[in-house]
Amino acid sequence: MKNVRILTVGAGAVGAYFTGRLAQAGAEVSVVVRSDYDAVRANGFEILSTAGDFHFQPHGVYRSAEEYPGKADYVFLTSKFFPETDEASMLRGAMGNPGTALVLIQNGIGIEDKLAAAFPDHEILSSIAYIGATRLKPGTVQQKGASELKFGRFGGGESAAGCRLEALFSETIGVQAAFVENIAWFRWSKLLWNLPYNPVSVLGGGLDTSRMTDRGPLEALTRALMEEVRLVAAAEGVDLPESLVDQNVEFTRNFPPYKTSMLVDFEAGRRMEVEAILGNVCRLAEKHRLKVPCMQTCYALLSAVAEKR
Amino acid sequence: MKNVRILTVGAGAVGAYFTGRLAQAGAEVSVVVRSDYDAVRANGFEILSTAGDFHFQPHGVYRSAEEYPGKADYVFLTSKFFPETDEASMLRGAMGNPGTALVLIQNGIGIEDKLAAAFPDHEILSSIAYIGATRLKPGTVQQKGASELKFGRFGGGESAAGCRLEALFSETIGVQAAFVENIAWFRWSKLLWNLPYNPVSVLGGGLDTSRMTDRGPLEALTRALMEEVRLVAAAEGVDLPESLVDQNVEFTRNFPPYKTSMLVDFEAGRRMEVEAILGNVCRLAEKHRLKVPCMQTCYALLSAVAEKR
Repeated sequence: MKNVRILTVGAGAVGAYFTGRLAQAGAEVSVVVRSDYDAVRANGFEILSTAGDFHFQPHGVYRSAEEYPGKADYVFLTSKFFPETDEASMLRGAMGNPGTALVLIQNGIGIEDKLAAAFPDHEILSSIAYIGATRLKPGTVQQKGASELKFGRFGGGESAAGCRLEALFSETIGVQAAFVENIAWFRWSKLLWNLPYNPVSVLGGGLDTSRMTDRGPLEALTRALMEEVRLVAAAEGVDLPESLVDQNVEFTRNFPPYKTSMLVDFEAGRRMEVEAILGNVCRLAEKHRLKVPCMQTCYALLSAVAEKR
Repeated sequence: MKNVRILTVGAGAVGAYFTGRLAQAGAEVSVVVRSDYDAVRANGFEILSTAGDFHFQPHGVYRSAEEYPGKADYVFLTSKFFPETDEASMLRGAMGNPGTALVLIQNGIGIEDKLAAAFPDHEILSSIAYIGATRLKPGTVQQKGASELKFGRFGGGESAAGCRLEALFSETIGVQAAFVENIAWFRWSKLLWNLPYNPVSVLGGGLDTSRMTDRGPLEALTRALMEEVRLVAAAEGVDLPESLVDQNVEFTRNFPPYKTSMLVDFEAGRRMEVEAILGNVCRLAEKHRLKVPCMQTCYALLSAVAEKR
């Protein structure tokens, strides 16, 4: 794997973990970090993982993508999605060659549109992570629970870069990675969980998953939100079977109670991904002239809450 | 007016103000107070009012309705509505005679049902207050803004006790009071304001009225909630014309920004009237098999927020 070059931009917990595993398997991985630059430059990353702790010493540590020398095979972007962030400018310095594929590991819907327009000649690998990864302190990351990654060509279909990335991950320890031809399905399927539980956990005054799966009005609300997601997904050509709703609820009910990532962000005073999780979906509903009243109610309220912070 | 006997149960700011005005005009007004018993027993009420401050010395001050001697012409109940409160037991001691009319000054929908069942032989005057009244400290009440009362027989129609009460109020200073034959209309009409603005102000993270009338998504949400109120009201035989929605929004937009009473209660750590304002209306919608998704979303979220407190 030595001849593959990777740049991870905004290497937070998720990015450091997945590309750190690639580095551990022999890839040349460099990172762009901002607030943790000094710590990472000095000591790299300490990664605590259920599949074994390891040290990840990036090949290069930079403050911006412009500083990256040569060309990368893969540029990973794993920061949260906020609509006004100019991600294209953040990445442009490392995207000089069309052979560079862009790997986006972000939640939500509509997160690829601006980058696909900015880099029309590059392959974009839209990715969904199933992982619990936390930055404990600068340069220290903890992975818990799953460690799974699904990626596919934005727009669907085959991808040489995607197949190669799957092969690269197959050499890593602990990561279950798969190239899929219908990544949109997995993205919407993950949204079927994220869209109800994240906003309701915050708007309900700080609710864990057990309170939202208690067979009462909050469970009814999260189910209604899931049905609205199914409606919008269908209009976008993605069929989420009705049985997924029950599966989602049962899975969540049987899991030990926990706080959603949006609630954790909210309580820590960090910004919430309101647009990727809710706003972009409401706009798609509007485009297709679909009624999604529960979703729009939550979107209006959550936007106001976010703005207050 | 000397020969009219009134008992005000749970004499908070609203009750003390309105029945204090009747006392000022010569009625024999006694009160049942709990937490402020000592202060009111010692010094009565100081009432600060835009129509002139005055002192209100109740004829009798009691800890419960059972202590009230003789019979009242009117028993006023002006406490907030919470479904599990046994209002009938609170009042029974003063309701020995069918000639005693019960005057309920409370917000929301469905607040009369239990009392109508408990006192089938008594006239119930369902009342809507338009007033800004605040308890500044034990025994001190401030009235601001309007000072208006509408009342009518629960169920509608004529009422000798209602007409007499209107005549009594006509002798007071500063109170605009009117007996109406269709009090349900006024109750639903006030709910058309209360149901959207109160919950949204709390769920949106503490919003004043200007934020909810800013022609953005929150205004759209409050308008959607008003349309749902109109739907339920229509099923209950109450016609709220569509023009009332615009009127409500315009009136609120042109008024100086202020916090709703539910938000004030929430911020002060006091209980919110979730059931009278939202829950009972959702249950009526269910009874009539009407879809009120925005209302139900707010109800589920607000119930959770209230429970968290």
